[in-house]
This record gives sequence, structure tokens and C-alpha cells, in this order.
Amino acid sequence: MKARIFVTLKNGVLDPQGKAIHHALEGLGFGGVNDVRQGKLIELDLADGTSDADIEAMCTKLLANTVIENFRIERA
Amino acid sequence: MKARIFVTLKNGVLDPQGKAIHHALEGLGFGGVNDVRQGKLIELDLADGTSDADIEAMCTKLLANTVIENFRIERA
Repeated sequence: MKARIFVTLKNGVLDPQGKAIHHALEGLGFGGVNDVRQGKLIELDLADGTSDADIEAMCTKLLANTVIENFRIERA
Repeated sequence: MKARIFVTLKNGVLDPQGKAIHHALEGLGFGGVNDVRQGKLIELDLADGTSDADIEAMCTKLLANTVIENFRIERA
């Protein structure tokens, strides 16, 4: 079973990596970019029967820093 | 207009970051994890009317290293 975890910075948290990407896109001549935020995508290959609660525990205990990050779980 | 870019390592490319997460999950007692791959999620806030071709050009020129990475574009 596959699960994908999307980890994104909460609104209001500074994102220097996103800012750098934004700046680089402008330098390459791409106009019309208002904002860039960078997050993480973690793909887990799990044993069948892994519960949603387990996946959520992985996120809160390790994968995301819930003080500054949100996470979203997508089972595939 | 928002677009999300998912950048993932191609199959066969070593992913030490994913291996580290895998190891850490096992250390925390989470069994049943077969594999972990880490990728990037880039959220773009674009001017309305930005074409798909522009977004794809951003990916190939800057956001993804197409030698070792795949990317997927999702418009929202």
C-alpha cells in the first residue's frame, strides 16, 4: 500500500527556500509569479493493513514539525 | 492561479534522505514500512493566464533536474 504525505509550511512561516526559487524564476525571465512555497513530499510504501492512525502518528512524531508545518495524507 | 509541482526521484536513483526517514521510523517502532522516498512539493501562485507550457518550462529549467528527477504538474 502506498501513501503520500504532503508537508507544507504553515501560513506566516517564512520560507527562504521558496523565496530563492521565486527569485531564480524571475532571473530566468519568468514573469507573473506571485509567490512560491516549497514543501516536502514523502512517499511511503507500507504493509497492507497499516491503519490511518499509524500513518498519522508517523507524521506527527517524525515527518512533520507540527509547530510550523501542516501535513496531508493521501492513500493510493 | 495556483499550481503544485511534485518533484520525485526517478526509480533507481539512490535516495539517502528517504533511507534516513525509513531508518528513523523503524527506530520509533513503526513496523511495516517497506520503502520511503522523499521528494519536493513546490506551490506556485501564478498570474492568471500563465500557460501550461510556461509552467513546464519552469520545471525543466529550474525546479526539477530531469536527469534524475520526474515532475508532475497539478493546476488548482
